[in-house]
Amino acid sequence: MTLSSDTRNREIRLIARPRPAVTEALFQLVEGPVPQPGPGELLIRVLYLSLEPAMRGWISDAPNYREPLPLDETMFGFTVGQVSASNHPDYAAGDLVAGRQGWREWAVSDGSDIDRKLTPAGFPVTCHLHLLGLTGVTAYLGLLEVGQPKAGETVAVSTAAGAVGSTVGQIAKIKGCKTLGITGSDDKVAACKTRFGYDAALNYKTEADLSAAIGAACPEGIDVYFDNVGGPVSDAVMAHINVGARIVVCGTMGIAGSDPDSPPQGPRYQRQILVKRARMEGFLVLDHMDRRGQALQDLETWLEAGQLNYLEDITEGLDQAPAALMKLLAGGNQGKAIVQLGPAP
Amino acid sequence: MTLSSDTRNREIRLIARPRPAVTEALFQLVEGPVPQPGPGELLIRVLYLSLEPAMRGWISDAPNYREPLPLDETMFGFTVGQVSASNHPDYAAGDLVAGRQGWREWAVSDGSDIDRKLTPAGFPVTCHLHLLGLTGVTAYLGLLEVGQPKAGETVAVSTAAGAVGSTVGQIAKIKGCKTLGITGSDDKVAACKTRFGYDAALNYKTEADLSAAIGAACPEGIDVYFDNVGGPVSDAVMAHINVGARIVVCGTMGIAGSDPDSPPQGPRYQRQILVKRARMEGFLVLDHMDRRGQALQDLETWLEAGQLNYLEDITEGLDQAPAALMKLLAGGNQGKAIVQLGPAP
Repeated sequence: MTLSSDTRNREIRLIARPRPAVTEALFQLVEGPVPQPGPGELLIRVLYLSLEPAMRGWISDAPNYREPLPLDETMFGFTVGQVSASNHPDYAAGDLVAGRQGWREWAVSDGSDIDRKLTPAGFPVTCHLHLLGLTGVTAYLGLLEVGQPKAGETVAVSTAAGAVGSTVGQIAKIKGCKTLGITGSDDKVAACKTRFGYDAALNYKTEADLSAAIGAACPEGIDVYFDNVGGPVSDAVMAHINVGARIVVCGTMGIAGSDPDSPPQGPRYQRQILVKRARMEGFLVLDHMDRRGQALQDLETWLEAGQLNYLEDITEGLDQAPAALMKLLAGGNQGKAIVQLGPAP
Repeated sequence: MTLSSDTRNREIRLIARPRPAVTEALFQLVEGPVPQPGPGELLIRVLYLSLEPAMRGWISDAPNYREPLPLDETMFGFTVGQVSASNHPDYAAGDLVAGRQGWREWAVSDGSDIDRKLTPAGFPVTCHLHLLGLTGVTAYLGLLEVGQPKAGETVAVSTAAGAVGSTVGQIAKIKGCKTLGITGSDDKVAACKTRFGYDAALNYKTEADLSAAIGAACPEGIDVYFDNVGGPVSDAVMAHINVGARIVVCGTMGIAGSDPDSPPQGPRYQRQILVKRARMEGFLVLDHMDRRGQALQDLETWLEAGQLNYLEDITEGLDQAPAALMKLLAGGNQGKAIVQLGPAP
C-alpha cells in the first residue's frame, strides 16, 4: 500500500470477466515508466479514483447499457488528478482536473478524457468524485426527473447510506419529503439518521419482518422508491407503495452477479403495479447529461450551504483498488469508496 | 337459456368470493316482479351485458383498485338497454342507453347509472360495449397516453385477439406502427392476421420457444408492450424490449387468480428495465376519464370509416352469464364477450 512515486507508473488492467464474482484475479498490476506528453498533450498525476457499484456491470459481458471494457485495457474509472506537465493550451502544471483517467497513477491526455477543470472551493476536491460528480448527478436527476417527489410525500431509498442513496435521501429532505432509508448494518442505520437526516432507517439484515417494519415506518405508504438493489428488499418496499407511486430503478446490486443463464426469480410485481397504477422506470444518468449543469449548480449550492453531508471511505494505494472494489460490492464500505493514489493537493 | 320476459325480472347476485377460481357457485339467480319507476325515475330493459376480464378483480377481495362488490348485491357490469317507461325528463320510452345496470333483466334508474343516450348509427348498438365503450377507451388511452407509440415502432400486444388487445393492435396500425399479436389459439392467430391486421401473430401455447419466435417476428425489437397478462408470456416479450421501451400494464390475466398468500414468482425484470431504461406503468382507464371524449370521437370516426374491426362472442340468456364469464376468464371466447338478454333493437 504505497502512494505513487514520481518515476514509475503503475496501472491496473482488466484481464478476465466476473464469473460471476468480482475477484482480485480479474485484475493485473502492470508497471512501467511514467509516460511523457507529446505536442498538444498533458501529463496528469492521478490523485483519487472513484469506485462505483456499476463497475461490476462495466467489466461484465452480460447485457448492459454499454459495451463491456475490453480485456487487457486499463480499468475504466472516474478520477481527480493534478496536471504535472502540459503542452495543451487549456491546461497548466498545477491545475486540478476531474476526468476519466482510469486505474493508473500517471496518464497522458489530449484533453478528451477530462471532464472539467476544478476551482478551489470550501470543500475537499474529492467531492468532485461523489456529490459533485456522477454520483450526485445520478441522485439528483434520478430522484427529481424520474421520481418527481412532491413536498409531503414519502421517499424510500435502498442502499440508503451509500454514495448515491445518501444523496437521494438528503435531496428528498431538501424538497420537503419524508424519508426512509434501508441499509445493511447498524452503523449505516446510525449514519442514515444522524448524518443523512433520514426520518427513519432500517437494517434489512436484522429486521425479522422487513415489510412490516417498512409499513410501521411509513404509515402513509411510499410515493417514491429510489431502488439501488432490485431484490428481496425491493419486494418488501413494493408491498407498501401508494397509488401513483414512482419506482426509480437506478441499480440492481441485490440481484447482480447472478448466473446470467438462470435469472433471479422473485414475486411478480405486475399486479401491484396495475392496482397502484405505479410507474417503474430504469434510470441511467448518461441519458440525462443535458441536465447535468443544473444538477451540479444546485448540488454545489447545497454543499456550500451545509445542506449536504457525505462520508468517504478512502483506501490508499493503487494496488488496493481491486480489494476496495470487492469490499464496495459486498456492502462493506462506509461512505463513498475512493482510492487515494497521490498526496492531497 | 331464454331472453327476458315482460312480466318477470331476473337478476344475478354475487354470493361468494373466488377462492381463487371463478365458478357458478359464486352467483345466484333471483327472480321477482319487474320493478316500477317512481317519480323522476325510468325503467330500463337491459338488452346486453358486457363481460370483462377485470370482473375477476371486481368480485375478489384481494387488493384491487376499487372496493370489491359487496356480497348479495346484483353483479356489477356495463350494459346497453332500452327505456321501457320514463318519469325522467331526459329519457323517453324507446331511448337506447349505455350504462351500468348490472346483471339484471330490468332496472329502475334515476339516471345516475346511465353513461349516455345512444343515437342510431351505421354500426350495431353492441359496439357501445366494446369499441365505443370502456374497452375501446382503455385500448386507446392505454396505448396512446402510456405507451406513446411513434410511427415505425414495433408494438407487441398480449391477449391480442381479445376485446382490448385487438383494438390496441388496430390503433397501433392506424398510428403507423408494426404490430405483433400474442394469443392462445390458432383460430385467434388467424383472427389477428386477417381481421385485426397484425403484421405477425403467435400462439403462445404451441410455440416451442416463444422468446425465439418473438425475436424472429420482431427483428427490430419491441418499443411498446401492451400487457394484458403479466405472466410467462410477458417474460418472453421483456427479453426483446428496446432501449426506452414502454410497458403498459393493463391486465394480469396470466397471473390472476393465484393464491394471494403465495404471490406468483417469475424472473426479476429490474435488470432489464435498468439496462433498457424502460418504463413499466400500470394503467387503469378510470384514472383517465377526462380524456374519454377524445378517445370516443376518434374511435367512432375510425369505426365509421371501416378502420376498426371487431368480433363479438354473444351468449343468450341471463342465466348463462356466469358460464360465459368463466369461459372468458379461461380464454375460451372468440371476440368481445357479451350476454344478450333482450331482442336486438
